[in-house]
Amino acid sequence: MAQVGVIMGSISDWETMQHTCEELETLNISYEKEVISAHRTPDDMFTYAQNAREKGLKVIIAGAGGAAHLPGMIASQTTLPVIGVPVESKALQGVDSLLSIVQMPGGVPTATVAIGKAGAKNAAVLATQIISTFDEKAEQALKAYRTAMKDAVQEMRDELATY
Amino acid sequence: MAQVGVIMGSISDWETMQHTCEELETLNISYEKEVISAHRTPDDMFTYAQNAREKGLKVIIAGAGGAAHLPGMIASQTTLPVIGVPVESKALQGVDSLLSIVQMPGGVPTATVAIGKAGAKNAAVLATQIISTFDEKAEQALKAYRTAMKDAVQEMRDELATY
Amino acid sequence: MAQVGVIMGSISDWETMQHTCEELETLNISYEKEVISAHRTPDDMFTYAQNAREKGLKVIIAGAGGAAHLPGMIASQTTLPVIGVPVESKALQGVDSLLSIVQMPGGVPTATVAIGKAGAKNAAVLATQIISTFDEKAEQALKAYRTAMKDAVQEMRDELATY
Amino acid sequence: MAQVGVIMGSISDWETMQHTCEELETLNISYEKEVISAHRTPDDMFTYAQNAREKGLKVIIAGAGGAAHLPGMIASQTTLPVIGVPVESKALQGVDSLLSIVQMPGGVPTATVAIGKAGAKNAAVLATQIISTFDEKAEQALKAYRTAMKDAVQEMRDELATY
Amino acid sequence: MAQVGVIMGSISDWETMQHTCEELETLNISYEKEVISAHRTPDDMFTYAQNAREKGLKVIIAGAGGAAHLPGMIASQTTLPVIGVPVESKALQGVDSLLSIVQMPGGVPTATVAIGKAGAKNAAVLATQIISTFDEKAEQALKAYRTAMKDAVQEMRDELATY
Amino acid sequence: MAQVGVIMGSISDWETMQHTCEELETLNISYEKEVISAHRTPDDMFTYAQNAREKGLKVIIAGAGGAAHLPGMIASQTTLPVIGVPVESKALQGVDSLLSIVQMPGGVPTATVAIGKAGAKNAAVLATQIISTFDEKAEQALKAYRTAMKDAVQEMRDELATY
Amino acid sequence: MAQVGVIMGSISDWETMQHTCEELETLNISYEKEVISAHRTPDDMFTYAQNAREKGLKVIIAGAGGAAHLPGMIASQTTLPVIGVPVESKALQGVDSLLSIVQMPGGVPTATVAIGKAGAKNAAVLATQIISTFDEKAEQALKAYRTAMKDAVQEMRDELATY
Amino acid sequence: MAQVGVIMGSISDWETMQHTCEELETLNISYEKEVISAHRTPDDMFTYAQNAREKGLKVIIAGAGGAAHLPGMIASQTTLPVIGVPVESKALQGVDSLLSIVQMPGGVPTATVAIGKAGAKNAAVLATQIISTFDEKAEQALKAYRTAMKDAVQEMRDELATY
Repeated sequence: MAQVGVIMGSISDWETMQHTCEELETLNISYEKEVISAHRTPDDMFTYAQNAREKGLKVIIAGAGGAAHLPGMIASQTTLPVIGVPVESKALQGVDSLLSIVQMPGGVPTATVAIGKAGAKNAAVLATQIISTFDEKAEQALKAYRTAMKDAVQEMRDELATY
Repeated sequence: MAQVGVIMGSISDWETMQHTCEELETLNISYEKEVISAHRTPDDMFTYAQNAREKGLKVIIAGAGGAAHLPGMIASQTTLPVIGVPVESKALQGVDSLLSIVQMPGGVPTATVAIGKAGAKNAAVLATQIISTFDEKAEQALKAYRTAMKDAVQEMRDELATY
Repeated sequence: MAQVGVIMGSISDWETMQHTCEELETLNISYEKEVISAHRTPDDMFTYAQNAREKGLKVIIAGAGGAAHLPGMIASQTTLPVIGVPVESKALQGVDSLLSIVQMPGGVPTATVAIGKAGAKNAAVLATQIISTFDEKAEQALKAYRTAMKDAVQEMRDELATY
Repeated sequence: MAQVGVIMGSISDWETMQHTCEELETLNISYEKEVISAHRTPDDMFTYAQNAREKGLKVIIAGAGGAAHLPGMIASQTTLPVIGVPVESKALQGVDSLLSIVQMPGGVPTATVAIGKAGAKNAAVLATQIISTFDEKAEQALKAYRTAMKDAVQEMRDELATY
Repeated sequence: MAQVGVIMGSISDWETMQHTCEELETLNISYEKEVISAHRTPDDMFTYAQNAREKGLKVIIAGAGGAAHLPGMIASQTTLPVIGVPVESKALQGVDSLLSIVQMPGGVPTATVAIGKAGAKNAAVLATQIISTFDEKAEQALKAYRTAMKDAVQEMRDELATY
Repeated sequence: MAQVGVIMGSISDWETMQHTCEELETLNISYEKEVISAHRTPDDMFTYAQNAREKGLKVIIAGAGGAAHLPGMIASQTTLPVIGVPVESKALQGVDSLLSIVQMPGGVPTATVAIGKAGAKNAAVLATQIISTFDEKAEQALKAYRTAMKDAVQEMRDELATY
Repeated sequence: MAQVGVIMGSISDWETMQHTCEELETLNISYEKEVISAHRTPDDMFTYAQNAREKGLKVIIAGAGGAAHLPGMIASQTTLPVIGVPVESKALQGVDSLLSIVQMPGGVPTATVAIGKAGAKNAAVLATQIISTFDEKAEQALKAYRTAMKDAVQEMRDELATY
Repeated sequence: MAQVGVIMGSISDWETMQHTCEELETLNISYEKEVISAHRTPDDMFTYAQNAREKGLKVIIAGAGGAAHLPGMIASQTTLPVIGVPVESKALQGVDSLLSIVQMPGGVPTATVAIGKAGAKNAAVLATQIISTFDEKAEQALKAYRTAMKDAVQEMRDELATY
């Protein structure tokens, strides 16, 4: 049973959203993934959102670019937390994606993360943090993840020392 | 039977969208108006969009601010032309509204006009232009409207001459 | 007899505007295309705009970049609906094009679509939507187009399932 | 025992962050509130973050403006989910706050909401959504909240009908 | 016989453009002023531009806001230098005006000055500088103007010394 | 005797400013060119500006990028018209160059043109327009230039017709 | 003998720069203040910069708005550290000031602080930090200043507790 | 004993920050360099800042990108001057880095330099300028550096003369 639903507006978003999936695997969080387009498959979007809690999802992660309506519209049809990943767009580099996702009106939040790859990774970490509020295993995974991050800095220091 | 549907995400948008209604009256175009919130009443939004053509509407004008999803989501559920009016938002003065409305992905356009009052007026003019493609009375109304605009410039000239 | 006039400020805009023409062909809408420069051939621009309705055009689609005056100036000389396509500019990636096209003063609207290729495609769809207000064949073409879009999402899902 | 910690960088942020507290009360979520300045009391900030989980907090909401380092730095010292509220700044209207909060590097997310009052309200809703992943009472509160939002739209419609 | 033509898109631009006229008077440069709207009176605009050199104008100063097409379109119909003043717009504070005026394509320049009052004053100074290339009286006026500016700084110093 | 002085802040600006020189040659306007750095050779900059009129220059064209102080500082030391060309900068694509050049305080204008190559070409055209206010040969050159621009559009039309 | 020179481009900048002077007094750092305009008194500017070290100044703080050339041009004529304060401008709220000050080319730095009042205060603190590298009294003043800041947070906490 | 501490948030910042180190070597200023991540190694960051003065550092230079908290957080824990270098970020080209570094609240300044390579070089020059306030050798190095810059301009002039 997946804990996290990872959805994206188009297959072209996979280049970004694969980092979410990779990080969820690293953190040992079960997930499902799907293409759900707010504008091309609005009915599927609503069905997905309305069934999400019932089928056991704890968090939905939605990636989209440009006039990125997917995260906000999903959020309007579920009471689960929805994380929005602004995908870098061609002309405006994700500024449009970011504003379309984060500037939600009072009452219907999206939990917005950074534009592009860093945000995609962080969506996975944030979902795990949310799950960790009731699941100690997730908390342990996060602690290990943090330790690995610190170790990575140590490796960087070793590398820098060679320059 | 209304030819144009004027909808807005919140009653607070009325300050802007009333200019659409006033201009439609000037141009003698019948319209209906309603509050339809993409995020608070998503089901109503879809119902509205899906029934629009059938009940005789020719154009939908949708005003919204911030992460303004209303025009684009309406457009995803009807084949009628949808005009989006970016309402000026508090922090970002409508830049978020504009980008959320105009940057639609290929396949689902919104006809976007200027931020705020000028755009609200122009939504009415644009709707009338669309109707004028098959309705000569609308074309005549537009010609009269243009003449009035030129006359207004003449009045400005008289005023300037006094400075 | 062409229903849509597709014009552009320079041959360099063709890279973008060809997507408009391709999509119009897909939607079975007749069109003509021409280079009309607001700044280099202002007289031709006015002649084009003033004759447009008379020669049977229903919609004009104008693509331009930078200080993109073509859509707005065409709109000042016709009562037909004018769709503006902001072409991506070199330094500012189309932000200048977008603002020069969309921020029209009250009375003279342009129907603005997204920057670049997505907008160019959507200009064709929007023109077809406008024509569909009086032409059932266009409405049928739009329905088929929507169905094809949904099918494309299904193909994306199949592709995603393989990752 | 508070479930949510609401912190802000300065007492001047209270004008914004009071909306978080009000909304938490509406949603019946227990909270504590404190001024914690990333730059003036960095030690207190770290102590707060490091003790948060242990003392029972499930979510931290941090509001800050300008070079808004509070949410991200809190996030670096806890594995709890941290919600960042970009407070509207004087010169740049919160663009600096938004980017300083949302553009976190891979590994340390903040759940960013809209600039200003709407974001402050949504931080409360998002915190409740997070708690609802394991607490059915919170889920019920959210459902009631949604119903109240829909009712508010109905009231707007009644008001609009009078114009 | 006026040396400078000062035109503006609307009487509402007079608040800004009066500073141009005041400064031209200070610099003893003859001018005429008129409302010429690119979008509402395009024919008048072309007539004005085409007759400008013939009737003795040396420079045209055009102020406009929003999608500010007036300076660029005037420039397309005359070989006289055209100075563009970006009037501060409501939503975007003149960023749209600035980009619509300055980002002209190769071949048709506008001489763009600062947004708002400072730019309006500077349009007058720049026109005088242009005239000074062949008119020694204008050069003398500019020298006096510079001296007055330095004297004003001295007055500021006296004032500052009192704080 | 050169009529136009073309200066640039660094040899790296030559890639842009060569277009100014090429266009001046096309327009048959004599010019000199030099590297003058506002920040590295401030004394040379002042000497250049102070001697410009005396040695017969009619216009100074200054190209610079980033915190582009060259055009404005030159303008502070001469009463000749100074044209500023915002060179495209690496990180901010010339937005910094544009604002640093155009937003001059009242009293000291720069005649600002578009960012990059288009602006560099237009600086030459604008300089010729300024010279044309007293030199009929320059006016004739501009007319020929305009005719060539129209002919170029005709060639574009022939090309488009083949697509 | 003043340790810090506080200069500003216009008396209108005093509203901002007075905060620099107040804070220098709090920190017990001697200073002088003057109006020095880059564009209106360029010679004075160079004289000031060239004499600064000789007359005993350790740091120059320069405040300016719009196309803010003062800090960078001062920096080009002295090897003393120059702190630039971007004064909030009318139309662009200091974005132009910030970019004109901070985006200096390699070789001639300005030490840029925040836009407006916060930056003006911080210029004083930064100057004191620079002086503290060789002057223990300044270091002690900074320590006391920090303690006062922490105390102020405590007062904020007391205030918040009353809400 | 190093006079300057050069730190960066990630090894990926070395591409930028190496220019700081190179320039410090040219200027004969001793330095140490280290990777210190605000978000991954917050404890190390505080330790570094708190020990900096004691171990003899005079200036800290901190480079970081995106939500760049390193310079400001270092500054919160030391009274030494801290220079912030905004590293160019992927999506937003360093605008986020710049605002996160420069927009510090009153009381805790960072001395911010330009985005990217130019800023990295200038951080070294600025550090040397700070040291030059008490160290004449540094002042001499700066004078030689300035002379070399002027010589470089002369070489550019020779190159330009060949075009």
